[in-house]
Amino acid sequence: MSNQQEKPVILADQVQTILTDLEPLSRKVFLSLTPPSSLDNRADVDQLRQNLERVFQPVRVPLSLMAKIPSLCRSSDWKVTATLAETGRGWDLIDLESGDSTGSHYGLAVDIGTTTVVAYLINLVDGTVLGHAADYNDQISLGEDILSRIRQAMEPGGLIRLQTLVINTLNRLIKQLCASSLKSGQITAAAIGANTTMIHLLLGLDPTSICRAPYTPIVNSPGLISAGELGLEINPLAPVYCLPSIGSYLGGDVIGGILVSGMHNKSDVSLFVDIGTNGEIVMGNQEWLVACAGAAGPALEGGVTAFGMRAEPGAVDHVSIDRKSGQVTYTTIGNMPARGICGSGLVDTLAELFLNGIIDRTARFTQGREKYIVVPASETAMGENIVVTQIDVNNFMATKGAVNSAIDLLMENVGCHWQEISHFYAAGAFGQYLPIESAITIGLYPDLPRPAIVRLGNSSGEAARQVLISRTKRMEAETIAAKVTYFELNANPSFMEKFVSSKFLPHTDLDRYPSVKKRLESRV
Amino acid sequence: MSNQQEKPVILADQVQTILTDLEPLSRKVFLSLTPPSSLDNRADVDQLRQNLERVFQPVRVPLSLMAKIPSLCRSSDWKVTATLAETGRGWDLIDLESGDSTGSHYGLAVDIGTTTVVAYLINLVDGTVLGHAADYNDQISLGEDILSRIRQAMEPGGLIRLQTLVINTLNRLIKQLCASSLKSGQITAAAIGANTTMIHLLLGLDPTSICRAPYTPIVNSPGLISAGELGLEINPLAPVYCLPSIGSYLGGDVIGGILVSGMHNKSDVSLFVDIGTNGEIVMGNQEWLVACAGAAGPALEGGVTAFGMRAEPGAVDHVSIDRKSGQVTYTTIGNMPARGICGSGLVDTLAELFLNGIIDRTARFTQGREKYIVVPASETAMGENIVVTQIDVNNFMATKGAVNSAIDLLMENVGCHWQEISHFYAAGAFGQYLPIESAITIGLYPDLPRPAIVRLGNSSGEAARQVLISRTKRMEAETIAAKVTYFELNANPSFMEKFVSSKFLPHTDLDRYPSVKKRLESRV
Repeated sequence: MSNQQEKPVILADQVQTILTDLEPLSRKVFLSLTPPSSLDNRADVDQLRQNLERVFQPVRVPLSLMAKIPSLCRSSDWKVTATLAETGRGWDLIDLESGDSTGSHYGLAVDIGTTTVVAYLINLVDGTVLGHAADYNDQISLGEDILSRIRQAMEPGGLIRLQTLVINTLNRLIKQLCASSLKSGQITAAAIGANTTMIHLLLGLDPTSICRAPYTPIVNSPGLISAGELGLEINPLAPVYCLPSIGSYLGGDVIGGILVSGMHNKSDVSLFVDIGTNGEIVMGNQEWLVACAGAAGPALEGGVTAFGMRAEPGAVDHVSIDRKSGQVTYTTIGNMPARGICGSGLVDTLAELFLNGIIDRTARFTQGREKYIVVPASETAMGENIVVTQIDVNNFMATKGAVNSAIDLLMENVGCHWQEISHFYAAGAFGQYLPIESAITIGLYPDLPRPAIVRLGNSSGEAARQVLISRTKRMEAETIAAKVTYFELNANPSFMEKFVSSKFLPHTDLDRYPSVKKRLESRV
Repeated sequence: MSNQQEKPVILADQVQTILTDLEPLSRKVFLSLTPPSSLDNRADVDQLRQNLERVFQPVRVPLSLMAKIPSLCRSSDWKVTATLAETGRGWDLIDLESGDSTGSHYGLAVDIGTTTVVAYLINLVDGTVLGHAADYNDQISLGEDILSRIRQAMEPGGLIRLQTLVINTLNRLIKQLCASSLKSGQITAAAIGANTTMIHLLLGLDPTSICRAPYTPIVNSPGLISAGELGLEINPLAPVYCLPSIGSYLGGDVIGGILVSGMHNKSDVSLFVDIGTNGEIVMGNQEWLVACAGAAGPALEGGVTAFGMRAEPGAVDHVSIDRKSGQVTYTTIGNMPARGICGSGLVDTLAELFLNGIIDRTARFTQGREKYIVVPASETAMGENIVVTQIDVNNFMATKGAVNSAIDLLMENVGCHWQEISHFYAAGAFGQYLPIESAITIGLYPDLPRPAIVRLGNSSGEAARQVLISRTKRMEAETIAAKVTYFELNANPSFMEKFVSSKFLPHTDLDRYPSVKKRLESRV
């Protein structure tokens, strides 16, 4: 699969925090045991456990490992490496290897998106990323979006089919990651960031209640589950930790985003936004966290614009229009002949159209135009013009309006002003590939001092990495989940009001966008 | 199977301690949950766990139960009974039932003997025995004694065969116990008392090292294992606790015996003896416990005497010889025509022969006799005389000599005298069916004041019951196991010396048997 993923797979450097004092979900300990004698005739399993319990308390040795302990100890001259898994209330022995293998210690950090699944192979010795692999979620074959998946899960056998599909996807990625360099059984822990529905389908839990009042999931904090129970092809006793969710619409991916941003530890107020097909917005600081979520529309995912497409080869990803000549220049992913426009290309196009007065502040084409040719037919793969129409612009404005209204409503309700926002965290694709200046120009990002705008990349994957390698981060994630107050947008009558009035470029209140205002003025 | 078991199945009343403050391995809690609403939209699993964690901390909800929770809560109007299992470090949810079922709460206490397996159905509400079932251990088909079982386990596939056989035996007994009154899945906890080899075979662990220097088992404290892992047909998540062993020759059955006797809590010194094919002797008090073990020979199990047999119908179980007429009277089990002599019959016969001067203090027939006819041919099932020969007497003397020598050696080594022994606890068959006075007469039991002689019956089974229903008892068992010092008999050069010199009736030192001495004197 191409590196040019719509969903970013690379963990942004600025957020790939280096954690000291690693406390990964699984630990390795090298032990030099005592061969039994008439002076020390403890049973092998008991001696092993007693040695481990000098550091880890208490340790359970599962029956499935007991049988192999005596022969392994003897064949390795009583020098063995034990792998222990955290259980949240003590430790389980999950593997025993000959000699000192503490230098080879692997974990898996996973981001399960509705569309894309990304897996990172983590070196649990130092917490670094050894490699990543990404692929579409096989569940796509049964429906593109969350609602259609939930509908599929209601069909007879549907739930198991969906579970099998995502497990297959994961196992394929695990195979890729291990390739020839290690056996998948050497992966002894995994952490997963995903929305609530994806977690339910992964666990084989009926997601129906997620989309039916009162919208309560079956579980928000599944706790630790063994890989074997799920069918994940790593060490079957490996603990799998799912980032906790807060409810049907705020999943572990969002908790992960908050965790990675660090906004929950700051005294100043931050804003976290992730916009895909669904949008999630979180605001708060170390004392409080308020969140809302809702459908954002697929405008940024290439779903509805006439020539919208995913960020794949041939997608127009950057566009600029020369102020004087009106000449369009663009680039495509992979330098292939243009086939359509992806999210970043659309944001660029709209910003350029607006800055050049081709669409006005109400987002309507001026001078009687009905569309704009981004790529002429002669340069496209299909031999027809790639255009942006008024309908495309309107669709985008609906998304942007929904996001702006939600943020405004949230701020109004907590009594917070834009001046107080210290950081704006943009997560996911929304926070990775969108051109910053263009996104500000059309009001998708706020017009804050540029260093205050932080793009988190695949924060769900990065959060999975962090909770995989750090007990402190796991506890922080649980604390965040317990702390976030969910703010119900749909129940709020003023949402529609704000929604209608926010359909301006970049915003109804131009003073909130001083840099854009300046550019517009310089244009005249 | 006959009630006349060689292995006692009835827990002696005097030792079936009534425990207050039951803390069984599994617990039941009735909960009245809150239907989710917009005011309380916690996930079902989370709400259930939070409710349980008000009392039990922490609670893990296994994935296998999560799926059934939402529908069960709804169909039972949110009134449910949760069953929790102790894990030694928190609690696992292992069942959820509709409505209030706290009144129906069942556990299984098991004694796995090399020959006989006894299972008790325990009411976990009050700790009482609801029923018992006993049968031969199916492993007998692969060998009668422990050594032949170990040899079988070394054969290809032998270990699994032996494990399957004992699991089959247990499942048959479980079926019998449940009959029509309950489903076996309603049994939610089990505790097992057995020797170290039987535990290894039950767990599918290679017992080879048990009989090879330095005689270290694979495990002494297996911890809690789930019934499903073993293939026990009760609730598959039910915790199964095995009484800990101390080594290859001191198993959980002996720890159980000590536990039931209470000798580990007394300030005075007690003596605990269990003699089957193997013999175990424990001496000590609340401060120290010393134990030894060894082969005792099958004399008491009907193994070697010419007409020896198990305590089955047709076995001569009581014998007396009239002082004046020399006439023998006897009874048989089930009042059937005599087929042989079981342990209690042999002990009676030998005591009577000795008291009547037919054998002397050196255990030799007097007056040129070579055998004694216990039942004449005309009264036996086979139409031939049932006799006791000099060889039979010698075999018995070997067993008795070994027991006496071991006790003497133990006492000598801890510097303890017979006068200091406050209680003599006789366990197993050795402590259930042997006629007390006869056993004292021939020196098998010590000549203590009669109330000091306590017969424990199936103390392994009773110990299983106690640890099943009481956390305190489980902790006591672990403490006993950690406290007992194993005394190696074979390594001791003076054992043989004592063994040779102890082959007198009732003992080399007649003054240690004042009541027998008095009887012998009255005889003259």
